[in-house]
Amino acid sequence: MLPGVGVFGTGSTARVLVPLLRGEGFEVRALWGRSEEEARSLAQELGIPFHTSQSDDVLLHPDVDLVCIYISPPLTRQIAVKALGIGKNVVCEKAATAVDAFKMVTAARYYPQLLSIVGNALRFLPAFVAMRQLLAEGYVGELQVCDARVYGPSLLDQSYGWTCEELMGGGGLHTVGSTLVDLLSHLTGARAIRVHGLLRTFVRQNGAIRGIRRVTSDDFCFFQMLMGGSGSGRGTGSGVCCTVTLNFNMPGAFVHEVMVVGSAGRLVARGTELYGQRNGGNGEELLLGDSGGTGQEVKDVPLPHLRGLGSMVKALKDAFQAQEERRSWARGPVAMASTFEDGLYVQTVVEAVKRSSHSGEWESVEVMTQEPDPNQNL
Amino acid sequence: MLPGVGVFGTGSTARVLVPLLRGEGFEVRALWGRSEEEARSLAQELGIPFHTSQSDDVLLHPDVDLVCIYISPPLTRQIAVKALGIGKNVVCEKAATAVDAFKMVTAARYYPQLLSIVGNALRFLPAFVAMRQLLAEGYVGELQVCDARVYGPSLLDQSYGWTCEELMGGGGLHTVGSTLVDLLSHLTGARAIRVHGLLRTFVRQNGAIRGIRRVTSDDFCFFQMLMGGSGSGRGTGSGVCCTVTLNFNMPGAFVHEVMVVGSAGRLVARGTELYGQRNGGNGEELLLGDSGGTGQEVKDVPLPHLRGLGSMVKALKDAFQAQEERRSWARGPVAMASTFEDGLYVQTVVEAVKRSSHSGEWESVEVMTQEPDPNQNL
Repeated sequence: MLPGVGVFGTGSTARVLVPLLRGEGFEVRALWGRSEEEARSLAQELGIPFHTSQSDDVLLHPDVDLVCIYISPPLTRQIAVKALGIGKNVVCEKAATAVDAFKMVTAARYYPQLLSIVGNALRFLPAFVAMRQLLAEGYVGELQVCDARVYGPSLLDQSYGWTCEELMGGGGLHTVGSTLVDLLSHLTGARAIRVHGLLRTFVRQNGAIRGIRRVTSDDFCFFQMLMGGSGSGRGTGSGVCCTVTLNFNMPGAFVHEVMVVGSAGRLVARGTELYGQRNGGNGEELLLGDSGGTGQEVKDVPLPHLRGLGSMVKALKDAFQAQEERRSWARGPVAMASTFEDGLYVQTVVEAVKRSSHSGEWESVEVMTQEPDPNQNL
Repeated sequence: MLPGVGVFGTGSTARVLVPLLRGEGFEVRALWGRSEEEARSLAQELGIPFHTSQSDDVLLHPDVDLVCIYISPPLTRQIAVKALGIGKNVVCEKAATAVDAFKMVTAARYYPQLLSIVGNALRFLPAFVAMRQLLAEGYVGELQVCDARVYGPSLLDQSYGWTCEELMGGGGLHTVGSTLVDLLSHLTGARAIRVHGLLRTFVRQNGAIRGIRRVTSDDFCFFQMLMGGSGSGRGTGSGVCCTVTLNFNMPGAFVHEVMVVGSAGRLVARGTELYGQRNGGNGEELLLGDSGGTGQEVKDVPLPHLRGLGSMVKALKDAFQAQEERRSWARGPVAMASTFEDGLYVQTVVEAVKRSSHSGEWESVEVMTQEPDPNQNL
């Protein structure tokens, strides 16, 4: 039985998520927006019966059993933790800081019967599902190098807001880099042990952000991750070097490419398509084309994310539909999802890359095991 | 009047160079090989009237006024310096170390009337000539980021030799990375002030290199350069970030891509073709196709190098042909060539990247101004 859904957020992802949910048979019961006006406007547009700017109104809504949180990073932790406390299943965008991510992990551990996943849809994109499978089957031999690059137009909103602020989770590293950190760990079965990176903000002001306001979030970032042993025990990625290049000063382009190179061949996902080449083979082969699928390309939601979101919503349907209780779910269909623990790891890597960009040195990735004492500065 | 040419080397570059020289009207008078047998074999194949394994026999050859040195890095310095001392013009591959490069600079300064250029043919490739011109004209606006990547099959020779040895100038960084360091400095008009890099040798042994022998040279290399002010006064590249990714574990592929991104647009050279896109424009435009030109694609000589070599030989012809003396030359046609000073800079960057890979830290690029005391360890 499919649960009723409450959606947090009125941005572009929330806007594409609602039709995807409905396409799989979910009822979207309630919408939360930062302001009453934003909530009303999108609820009317999408025909959602209830809207509010009070988060409790959605969380306590009796018809809402699954909460999808696609809002700015500084707000996710608070709503996700509260939703779990109220007993709702949660799909949630990344947090703003590792401390917030840790609090989400604590809540998720406390309610293990509730679904709590980070909404990194790239893991569900068929090209990456196939890439992971082929890696496990040894298509590339011993994995050596992963190289990911995303180029695109500015990530800044039309008006000044969190996207401009590094400390609020804005910038290419936090917004896009984090999805790649998660994906590369998922693909290789290994985690970064040391990272090195460089962040830049080339565009500090534009037509919309001017005067005393300045952008502090990065629009260019590259980082390297040295991968260590796996948490999951499945990993063959120990010793692998990952490089990630992000550039959001390239209007008109959208390049999303992830390449894995090993001793026997390589795999490359370009956009939503997967290509492979075995050493000694006859050049590159198309392993998986874009199947089209639901959803049109939408401004601000790149195709790999859109397609992945579609597959993730399908997986959610599979997890819920055979269940009698509308809050219970099967683990199998969402087993590949990013957990809150993964979210904490990703956030830890992001912060280590930022530290490295300041220090100029390789920084260790040490995942928090205890919440820092909030009184440490007293 | 075109000078007679003596060619050092029997490798793939020497093999394609000879027909290119002849195509422009140069007479190739003498060939040097490491062994008598290698020299004889290639001289017979190419119909070169004189061959030897004694370097003096070429350098002192009365019909040789231009010496082209395409041999392994540890031998270049000795022959280049001697050639200049004997009064011959020199086109020379890179040296093995910064100390060697410094000795070459000293010799070049001592004989300013002689031609002394480093044979980095990429500078002459029409795509890069056009890219440099467009950068100067402001096509990309304010330059922000350069991103170069070269992927290809193994650089190792069939048998154990200098290509396997880091200290002898083997490896992707020294062999290919150095040409990109030179090119990026030429394109941006700026020089690296700090670098950070990571080198790896994934393939330590193969069918030909086994037993107690191991490859020490890198087959994967990733480095970043932060560019500072220009030596030439022309530079707009101060503050630019350059990233270079080299991977030579990709048999069957050859990817050679150099992208420059600025505030108003971008330029990308893919192989020998140049593409551009202005922000707000209608997508990418082909700015310069591959004109074909002389020379076929040859194993081990990637097309951008081959085409560049063809253009460089044309420039050499233009420099020499209007002169009455067969040793005199006009500076204009070869003004864009890499000088021995540039070669020293490049070698300094290469060594700083290697240092960084060991230390894990950003390393400063400090070009030698004095030869290190050879007795410093006594």
